[in-house]
Amino acid sequence: MKRVRFRDTGGNVRGGRWTVEDGEPVVTAAAGPYGRIAFGDESYDPDEVDILPPCEPTKVVCIGRNYADHAEEMDSELPDRPMLFLKAPNAVASHGKHLTMPSGKERIDYEAELGVVIGEQCRNVSESGAMDVVAGYTCVNDISNRDDQRREQNWVRGKAFDNACPIGPLVATPEHVPADASIELRLNGETKQSSSREHLIFSVPELIAEITSYMTLEPGDVIATGTPEGVGPMADGDEVEVEIEGIGTLKHSVKIP
Amino acid sequence: MKRVRFRDTGGNVRGGRWTVEDGEPVVTAAAGPYGRIAFGDESYDPDEVDILPPCEPTKVVCIGRNYADHAEEMDSELPDRPMLFLKAPNAVASHGKHLTMPSGKERIDYEAELGVVIGEQCRNVSESGAMDVVAGYTCVNDISNRDDQRREQNWVRGKAFDNACPIGPLVATPEHVPADASIELRLNGETKQSSSREHLIFSVPELIAEITSYMTLEPGDVIATGTPEGVGPMADGDEVEVEIEGIGTLKHSVKIP
Repeated sequence: MKRVRFRDTGGNVRGGRWTVEDGEPVVTAAAGPYGRIAFGDESYDPDEVDILPPCEPTKVVCIGRNYADHAEEMDSELPDRPMLFLKAPNAVASHGKHLTMPSGKERIDYEAELGVVIGEQCRNVSESGAMDVVAGYTCVNDISNRDDQRREQNWVRGKAFDNACPIGPLVATPEHVPADASIELRLNGETKQSSSREHLIFSVPELIAEITSYMTLEPGDVIATGTPEGVGPMADGDEVEVEIEGIGTLKHSVKIP
Repeated sequence: MKRVRFRDTGGNVRGGRWTVEDGEPVVTAAAGPYGRIAFGDESYDPDEVDILPPCEPTKVVCIGRNYADHAEEMDSELPDRPMLFLKAPNAVASHGKHLTMPSGKERIDYEAELGVVIGEQCRNVSESGAMDVVAGYTCVNDISNRDDQRREQNWVRGKAFDNACPIGPLVATPEHVPADASIELRLNGETKQSSSREHLIFSVPELIAEITSYMTLEPGDVIATGTPEGVGPMADGDEVEVEIEGIGTLKHSVKIP
């Protein structure tokens, strides 16, 4: 199952299913590789509706340095336990939008990440039981304002500004996303990051167990599992695509004043 | 006006007013210095209802090192701009409760703080217009797990664990809280912190202007404005009171496994 939240042509917020039609895939410009959105007895082209974040997190728990190659490119040591930071709901942004970034910064980077969407309220989850609390996976761009990130103890201006967390376009249930699912980021069509979730240092069950030993997670909360090597800056007007195998493609562009 | 959220004797969530009766103040054991709670044509002793957090933040934006004396006791330099960190809604806890802390930690500290409660969605607020977006003030205990705080870049395990942010018992509109309002913390009745909001390095309007230049604030969001000197550890069973002039007293106890 692939679930999508959207505003239909009448403006109503709906939770629909992202379906692939029989036969040839339908390629759409804005909304990922292919598919249509079904709700009730209606069906929409993803381009004709307003796609919303596929879940409504009360928090996004992000993981730093969870790929060895990215830690190396940032001159960072590998962590002995998951490195955590937070984005609040103000940071969440939608697929298909032109997203305004903070003004006057030297460098604002993309970071493609696998997002884990939580399905139920949970606390003190064991690794063996962790997949029971996962609703599915989505694509995340963990946008990072390096100017401020480098100046602050806690990465709030650097990581939690408005629009710093585009997610979507849908939540795919776990069976769609293989253990070695590819993760790719393209900037204006050029591949910049290309890796696989099999290279995560801390696995999804390990992350859930560690986080929930401190914090209750709520339905719709997202864990952004970290980015592989290849991060780099975005310029005004750039088009970003985060494609994860089995999920689809999160697309947005950026306005950098 | 002093507003309080509570669960009435029938279990319904209500938004009431905290009123002071004519004549002698009514001293109550659990719920602050004095008062009764009014909703519709009913009136309750604060002890007979279940007091909830007075607002429902989508995020708590906390300020570090915002009193010079506290920065000195922590061997920290004074910041050149507000130092920000985040607590997510999982951290918010209620007045009058026995709050479980993370287990196996050497030191979990209290930190009394003035909380600013936001009244409307806002972004890029000027200092001169900042008080227009303030619904009022509340008391905050910015509970800090030093063991983890000292080990992590971003203070998530250290500051954003469940129950790390008791707030309440009420929101007092700004006219109740003088510019030099006293802030006091008592541990088992003994005064441990005693200061005034006049000693804030960055004022409430300065904080709102800085934060909203990066982040949209929502109604019910809280800015925890930082703690004065005198922070220290809590032990299992300790009773904590945060009293701020013009607001009232936030009380809770702690269970430290």
